[in-house]
Amino acid sequence: MLELNFSNMMGEVVGQSGIPEREIEGIKTTVYDIDKRIKAKERPELAFIDLLEQDISEIKKIASAVRGEFESFIILGIGGSALGPRAIIEALSPLHNLDKKPKVFIYDNVDPRTFDRILSLADIKKTAVNVITKSGSTAETMSSFMILWDKFNKTVPDASKRFIATTDPEKGNLRKIADEKGFKTLSIPPGVGGRYSVLSPVGLLLTEVIGINADEMLQGARDIHKRCTDPEIWRNPAYLFGVLLYIMEREEKRPINVMVPYADGLKPTAEWFCQLWAESLGKLGMGLTPYPSLGTTDQHSQLQLWMEGPEDKVVIFIKVDDYTVDAEIPKVFQDMDGLNYLGGHTLSELIKAEQESTELALAKIKRPNMTISIPKIDAYHMGQLFHFFEMATAFTGFLYGVNPFNQPGVEEGKNFTYGMMGRKGYEAKRQEVEKAREKKMCWRV
Amino acid sequence: MLELNFSNMMGEVVGQSGIPEREIEGIKTTVYDIDKRIKAKERPELAFIDLLEQDISEIKKIASAVRGEFESFIILGIGGSALGPRAIIEALSPLHNLDKKPKVFIYDNVDPRTFDRILSLADIKKTAVNVITKSGSTAETMSSFMILWDKFNKTVPDASKRFIATTDPEKGNLRKIADEKGFKTLSIPPGVGGRYSVLSPVGLLLTEVIGINADEMLQGARDIHKRCTDPEIWRNPAYLFGVLLYIMEREEKRPINVMVPYADGLKPTAEWFCQLWAESLGKLGMGLTPYPSLGTTDQHSQLQLWMEGPEDKVVIFIKVDDYTVDAEIPKVFQDMDGLNYLGGHTLSELIKAEQESTELALAKIKRPNMTISIPKIDAYHMGQLFHFFEMATAFTGFLYGVNPFNQPGVEEGKNFTYGMMGRKGYEAKRQEVEKAREKKMCWRV
Repeated sequence: MLELNFSNMMGEVVGQSGIPEREIEGIKTTVYDIDKRIKAKERPELAFIDLLEQDISEIKKIASAVRGEFESFIILGIGGSALGPRAIIEALSPLHNLDKKPKVFIYDNVDPRTFDRILSLADIKKTAVNVITKSGSTAETMSSFMILWDKFNKTVPDASKRFIATTDPEKGNLRKIADEKGFKTLSIPPGVGGRYSVLSPVGLLLTEVIGINADEMLQGARDIHKRCTDPEIWRNPAYLFGVLLYIMEREEKRPINVMVPYADGLKPTAEWFCQLWAESLGKLGMGLTPYPSLGTTDQHSQLQLWMEGPEDKVVIFIKVDDYTVDAEIPKVFQDMDGLNYLGGHTLSELIKAEQESTELALAKIKRPNMTISIPKIDAYHMGQLFHFFEMATAFTGFLYGVNPFNQPGVEEGKNFTYGMMGRKGYEAKRQEVEKAREKKMCWRV
Repeated sequence: MLELNFSNMMGEVVGQSGIPEREIEGIKTTVYDIDKRIKAKERPELAFIDLLEQDISEIKKIASAVRGEFESFIILGIGGSALGPRAIIEALSPLHNLDKKPKVFIYDNVDPRTFDRILSLADIKKTAVNVITKSGSTAETMSSFMILWDKFNKTVPDASKRFIATTDPEKGNLRKIADEKGFKTLSIPPGVGGRYSVLSPVGLLLTEVIGINADEMLQGARDIHKRCTDPEIWRNPAYLFGVLLYIMEREEKRPINVMVPYADGLKPTAEWFCQLWAESLGKLGMGLTPYPSLGTTDQHSQLQLWMEGPEDKVVIFIKVDDYTVDAEIPKVFQDMDGLNYLGGHTLSELIKAEQESTELALAKIKRPNMTISIPKIDAYHMGQLFHFFEMATAFTGFLYGVNPFNQPGVEEGKNFTYGMMGRKGYEAKRQEVEKAREKKMCWRV
């Protein structure tokens, strides 16, 4: 089971930069109230919790067909539709494409260079495509879908058998196309938003495609769910996570949350968390800025700033208890001071020592931090990690009094793009762009 | 040539959140002074500028041998010794390992899972190793070096011919070992620090190993150097970049600098920049927090926070003028509103429209941002980008009155690790760790 060690967040340990126990006590009534609202499913988007009980037999069937028939598997999706899948494959099958089948390409941008490379690497005749968009009209995803659909139709006789649409069960253009053309389809339940969808078919199809049992991921999520709905804050890691970071921002003026897993494979999980945390909480002029990082690597990149830069950060470590593989450092160069101490230890001893050292170095100068321990990086514990963070994020949104499920701030940018691309009804936006271009003062060098 | 468009940083465009022209005028004298100090090479670490004139014939020779003889090329390095190489390969040879030789593995951590995977993918008999550490005793790098050295010795008769050491020309354990064992070696000039070393053999060897002419990279850097040493701030993109972000932090309380390239291949370049910026400036309780991002992808992840979160950020776009490849979106599904507008456009049109839209949406609500344009992603322009950022960083360090070349804040963590790993002379640190563990209050859930 995941564990949250928050000693270094507390006043007893880090003094004035820490949180006094009574402050957490003082927030208990609010927490009881939010807990009730979550359990009452006050908002339809809390449907992400129902994912834990979903039937995944159709996912397994489709995945098994993909595994049997195709050499490459392209995912088209962006934001929540790509970050979850990427977190899963990098955690559970690192460097997958170098010796595993099917190769997996997650195309989550409209970068022409990447698109060109993927097309030169994936043989269309042996490729399946999973198009993921809840709304069914995401510009980035649907553009690349349109190109691939056309290309497949010109190359293989049974194009429609190679497309799997993961989208709304009823609404949207992709659903309509999928039904008309006879694609295989998987549904994202109506309430579930993109960034809360990793444990829906969005993430689970890929899990099964790379040969991992998605049941285990859901089992992990179910097992931690009980702890994440305990109304007693001192026993609930998700609520506590939110309360601690909330107080750190509101009272201690620390709005930046650095997320540092000590495992290469969890770097995309930190990025997945960053979307969840940023997009859910960043509104009404408030919000926490999550920062994706990686240990030990970023000790040689960001640590200087965490230690001696402005006092505006909380560092959150993710510590792995068992890496399941290891390598011993041999006792070579024993005559060399500055090297000889390494011999006889293992890589996992070193990485763990570095994680603890960094924690301690921060605490020693009263810079708050906390540590999430994950027993090992497998499907079961990834399920725990995902669900824990989703519960924590929804809870923290309620704590801030914002809607943790919308993202109104991204609309204006989309409108300008529609205008520039000539979408009907957006003529005024196009004019606005043109006007802005005209009057744009060119400060340029 | 790179271009910096900073219209949306100026008061004339973004009103009160912007910078009045006179404020930049007012800083001119300081800039003249710093310019003189840079040109006088006031600090020995400004030696990174001399890299532009280096002789790279030895690099070319070694690279050519690696290309001819080996199927895999492992780089051991961390921080500046890895971020530069990673930025280069992902920008100039994306998805390299899927169809190019030699395969390149950059091991910049002590994660046992990654190490295990690399060893299962690279056939030692056909592998060369580049060990990169300036000091010659970086714990992470030397640990994996010791393991590989031992393994190579047990597997191939000519192990020492497969190791290339990139390190100080005279000092340190790695230099000593390399000389004793007869490794090929490349020198990092004494003054050049890790995070300013991408245009030294640290980055250039890999450039040549993947078949790219490193001369072009240096030529790009040389060509922009002239502009980056113009004492007139209005004509100097590097100084202006620093002054704008400095004023935004000091006067406007915007300490977070989001770096958003609109190209998958530049994501590691953003991470490279983040080390440079964070470690150089984050000291004495000051500093700017650079944030690595990616367009269009993070419009579906971070944009909400940039638009509606706290007013503590400046967004820096990197825009690509020519992606050199493209794909047209076909006119399919023309009966579908919400899709039909895409047909007939290309991916590069869409990605450019999205970049401009995001810029405009931010400017419209008076959130400052600026845009670096890069004509295309090739060796010449990557050289420009690297050198531009290095000059800007050194300059900005002088502007803050900090030493942009040291990183004193990382020492304490290292000391604790030495203590835990039993290094001689660090017994007191070990005791400190043990004491901390004992008295650690276990706030845990």
